[in-house]
Amino acid sequence: MYTIGIDLGGTNLRIGLFNEQGEIVEEYSRATEAEKGPEFAVNNMQEVINRLKQQYEIKAVGIGSPGPLDPYEGVIIEPPNLTGWVDVPLVKMLEEKTGIPVKLENDANAAALAEATLGAGKGAKSVFYVTVSTGVGGGYVNNGELISGAQGNCGEIGNMIVNPSPDAYQGPGLNKGALEGLASGTAIGRIGKERLGITNGAQGVFELASQGDKAAQDILDEAINYLAIGLANIVHTVNPEVIVIGGGVMKSKDLILQPLIEKTRNYLYPSLRDSLIIKPALLDQKAGLIGAGLLPK
Amino acid sequence: MYTIGIDLGGTNLRIGLFNEQGEIVEEYSRATEAEKGPEFAVNNMQEVINRLKQQYEIKAVGIGSPGPLDPYEGVIIEPPNLTGWVDVPLVKMLEEKTGIPVKLENDANAAALAEATLGAGKGAKSVFYVTVSTGVGGGYVNNGELISGAQGNCGEIGNMIVNPSPDAYQGPGLNKGALEGLASGTAIGRIGKERLGITNGAQGVFELASQGDKAAQDILDEAINYLAIGLANIVHTVNPEVIVIGGGVMKSKDLILQPLIEKTRNYLYPSLRDSLIIKPALLDQKAGLIGAGLLPK
Repeated sequence: MYTIGIDLGGTNLRIGLFNEQGEIVEEYSRATEAEKGPEFAVNNMQEVINRLKQQYEIKAVGIGSPGPLDPYEGVIIEPPNLTGWVDVPLVKMLEEKTGIPVKLENDANAAALAEATLGAGKGAKSVFYVTVSTGVGGGYVNNGELISGAQGNCGEIGNMIVNPSPDAYQGPGLNKGALEGLASGTAIGRIGKERLGITNGAQGVFELASQGDKAAQDILDEAINYLAIGLANIVHTVNPEVIVIGGGVMKSKDLILQPLIEKTRNYLYPSLRDSLIIKPALLDQKAGLIGAGLLPK
Repeated sequence: MYTIGIDLGGTNLRIGLFNEQGEIVEEYSRATEAEKGPEFAVNNMQEVINRLKQQYEIKAVGIGSPGPLDPYEGVIIEPPNLTGWVDVPLVKMLEEKTGIPVKLENDANAAALAEATLGAGKGAKSVFYVTVSTGVGGGYVNNGELISGAQGNCGEIGNMIVNPSPDAYQGPGLNKGALEGLASGTAIGRIGKERLGITNGAQGVFELASQGDKAAQDILDEAINYLAIGLANIVHTVNPEVIVIGGGVMKSKDLILQPLIEKTRNYLYPSLRDSLIIKPALLDQKAGLIGAGLLPK
């Protein structure tokens, strides 16, 4: 028995065939062309699934998609990364076309399941996954089970308030002083532009900081401090055994990981300081696809 | 078959006999006299348990105690409310004296289990319990199961940072700008003393506020705002179906509950605003005892 995992991204549509060990047996990728609408994307999914069905016995399909979405109803609500997709009943559409049960989850939740099951959190009883890239998101896996939350919004830590000051920055669709507005790759790039005139985003700040530029290092220090507050707040809320950190910003983990671990520890109760484990993600760009393949289990 | 629940408080030691429905059949209370040490308290527990054993078949004992403690090792570490109790192997001591299996948990976690199972969160799939009294604490119950956390520190939201300003107040043993230092009953009383010269703690602030005193209302507004940030941060971390709020400060819930609900909703993603349920606790002072009785299940 096999499962199919689909990583539905704003740019790419990735489809994998998984065996019972969660290993990828076959893999397929194409442009999502989200602007052509959900029907177009579902037809592309159907085509690959029908081809695989002829060769393999497929038990179920899992889809990881940008949110907001409703994992219980299987509906994509209105993701900024899938322009024009509004209240799309993706699960129903694909089930009708393929006759196979489909499960839908937020992409960060799918990645969390992958990292907890087969990645950096493997073997731990509880894992909180945090991704820092364009945005800040996450997911929570306890005793091997993905916790979706009542409305599927577990792990939406990008909107966690880490600075309540009236002067704090407010990003689009976010709380004033929310973590994503202060510590995402987008935020680092924005501040780099404001303070240093950098026009190539977070990457430019990382480059200057690695050359020893004090002002660029300050920008990173501030972002890392907010991330550390976010991680400590997660720990004091659910006390996971392991926090796994992934996302594009972690490509510069040499600059980020150690200070982030140290700052986070300083914000923890003494009894937690030595026991919290913070690890970089292992599965990188594959986490979303692998997690999608694990969703139906 | 019966269970025994023990609510070990800094002031009172409460012991209840519970039937399989979680109802209290018999109840016993005495002063803890914590200063006489753990051996004295354990002897008092043993005496009651042995008497109950002669009449009932006792399956297990649950104890809710002030933390920090290690629920996995059954050891009380060094609670501020049990002065002189350092690294007390309470589970081992009581098991050796009674021959009955004993389970130990943080008192807020026990109360969370009670409110989720038999109180305001009954029937919900996931419940986050928040208690606001001398301190701020909580507990998290998902699918009927209490989540203790890797080191038993799930729900330690009193140490969540809700204001990272260098000028933010730092309470003893807490982070600067931690929720408990800014929004507990102790915090409300402290600020009342600083700004208004009130010497009877939070109660004095509540009295003045209910008489329409603007400065007292401002103190409450600020505390409620920090609580709302804390609740919204919990929601964006684990998205519980219901948040249950208890603790001594909720005796003044006429002044607190509605503004707290409104402010919390304003800090949520729009898709969560209408769906989050916030309810006052139902079991009040009994929650700790009832939860202790539910622990062994």
